[in-house]
Amino acid sequence: MGALHEGHVSLMRHAAAENTDVFVTIYVNPTQFGLNEDLDSYPKTWDADMQVLHQLDAHLASAGQGRITAVFAPNTKTMYPTSPPDSRIPGLGSFVEMRPLGQLLEGASRPVFFRGVATVCMKLFNICTPDRVYFGQKDIQQTRVIQRLITDFHMDMDLRIVPTSREPDGLALSSRNVYLGLRRRKVGIALIEALRKAEVQYKNGMRLRNDVLWPAFDHGNMILLEQEQMQPSERAKFEVDYISLTDPDTMEEIDVIDDSKGAILSGAVKMLPLEEPQEGEELGQLDANGHQVPVRLIDNIVLEPMR
Amino acid sequence: MGALHEGHVSLMRHAAAENTDVFVTIYVNPTQFGLNEDLDSYPKTWDADMQVLHQLDAHLASAGQGRITAVFAPNTKTMYPTSPPDSRIPGLGSFVEMRPLGQLLEGASRPVFFRGVATVCMKLFNICTPDRVYFGQKDIQQTRVIQRLITDFHMDMDLRIVPTSREPDGLALSSRNVYLGLRRRKVGIALIEALRKAEVQYKNGMRLRNDVLWPAFDHGNMILLEQEQMQPSERAKFEVDYISLTDPDTMEEIDVIDDSKGAILSGAVKMLPLEEPQEGEELGQLDANGHQVPVRLIDNIVLEPMR
Repeated sequence: MGALHEGHVSLMRHAAAENTDVFVTIYVNPTQFGLNEDLDSYPKTWDADMQVLHQLDAHLASAGQGRITAVFAPNTKTMYPTSPPDSRIPGLGSFVEMRPLGQLLEGASRPVFFRGVATVCMKLFNICTPDRVYFGQKDIQQTRVIQRLITDFHMDMDLRIVPTSREPDGLALSSRNVYLGLRRRKVGIALIEALRKAEVQYKNGMRLRNDVLWPAFDHGNMILLEQEQMQPSERAKFEVDYISLTDPDTMEEIDVIDDSKGAILSGAVKMLPLEEPQEGEELGQLDANGHQVPVRLIDNIVLEPMR
Repeated sequence: MGALHEGHVSLMRHAAAENTDVFVTIYVNPTQFGLNEDLDSYPKTWDADMQVLHQLDAHLASAGQGRITAVFAPNTKTMYPTSPPDSRIPGLGSFVEMRPLGQLLEGASRPVFFRGVATVCMKLFNICTPDRVYFGQKDIQQTRVIQRLITDFHMDMDLRIVPTSREPDGLALSSRNVYLGLRRRKVGIALIEALRKAEVQYKNGMRLRNDVLWPAFDHGNMILLEQEQMQPSERAKFEVDYISLTDPDTMEEIDVIDDSKGAILSGAVKMLPLEEPQEGEELGQLDANGHQVPVRLIDNIVLEPMR
């Protein structure tokens, strides 16, 4: 979807390391945005994106690796040739739908999201006919949807999942991070901190859902309480959408971790606009009315199987 | 779906005339049958089907045309690798859905039908990667669904539509005709007779919906009345599901035919089991309990554009 950051560059580097030709698709797909979501404000940064690609391609050339052979940036008439993109439910048009996988977690919060993702990826795959497709672990449920698409529809390609790129303090890179601003940015690491506390439990031998998850909830609640107790001029409030422990393939919630399968820890929080922004405070990119937008952050940790 | 008849052979002949290699897929797809439909009783005739294919292939060899290179007859675990085929609504699994195209006409009578067709065809196409796919005009809405699949998902193949094969009296060939028996078989031509009366109206210059359709309804009502007035021991009753005049691409009902686009006349009737079968009467293939099954007949006529 453009707005390229180091996470995207990492995907392309991985692709260039094992392929001669890397195709990059850039398309902000309307059908994966709900009617009340941020399609209009989603960052569009074409010139900067092209600069990133040219720089990366020059690096790849000197490193003797695969090259960025093409950028495919279609318009919406190409991607939705028959009827205009529809984000309603059920909505008109031709769609790929996956139940229940597309309705869980991110799909519960964003009901059209995975329908849009699966549909547009099917089209992009058919147009580009890649041998391998590269997706980031950051959007882990999306990687499961893509794997299901490949398996269930017998698409002739392999999925590669590339580890999440992070800031030094742990915040997962995301195109939406530009909207955070400094104050929310600092509080936003609560999510990965919480997930890491649950990961420690797993590494320490815990297998029951509550035994693994309680320190994550505990950490989230502690940070929330801290913020509550601060002045509106100093705090950044957020809402926890979910903290989840799921089967690694189906993304369905589990009560016990099966050692032979492992599990996925994931979470989502919504960083609310600051109540009292301060004079001269770095607020990040603002909307057309000069206001902060709510920013949804997601993250996850794969609990690898124990053998 | 197997149960091969001359209509299928016509598809294969057309394919062999313009291709070197013809792939035949035979798979009775569970997801296109509703929970109350005739999946279990759908005719399965593997040995006879293979005989048809061998005979045809011998013909094609001596005619120097393309050959039947392969038959792909997968099992359900191959076609539905992740979750078992589900015919419920909304139903679990990975599906291609088309709205409203898949919900009109046949889709209104059979709500899961086109979801099942689009889904299984997407899989079959990805497995076989054909240059051209051949479908019969008999299932005209299905041809529109397939064309939409190819267009909307950018599938790299062309659709060929092969004219409907008919008995000398006009009845369209169908695998389900074996269930009719002689008495219902004779009354069943009412459908194509009715559609042909509407076609005459179009050829005579009529363009308004009612002007085109009334003789079709009139004919249907006349045959129904005739049957009503006969003894139960002699008659074959039926129900008219729909008589339709639609846009040739969207399959949406139209009030006026646009000369530059033409239109599609289509209809569906349900032939009811005989009320009083007679001793020694030819009843067609019966169900497991020795009873006649209701038989749904569909047919259509393309009203070509006038230039």
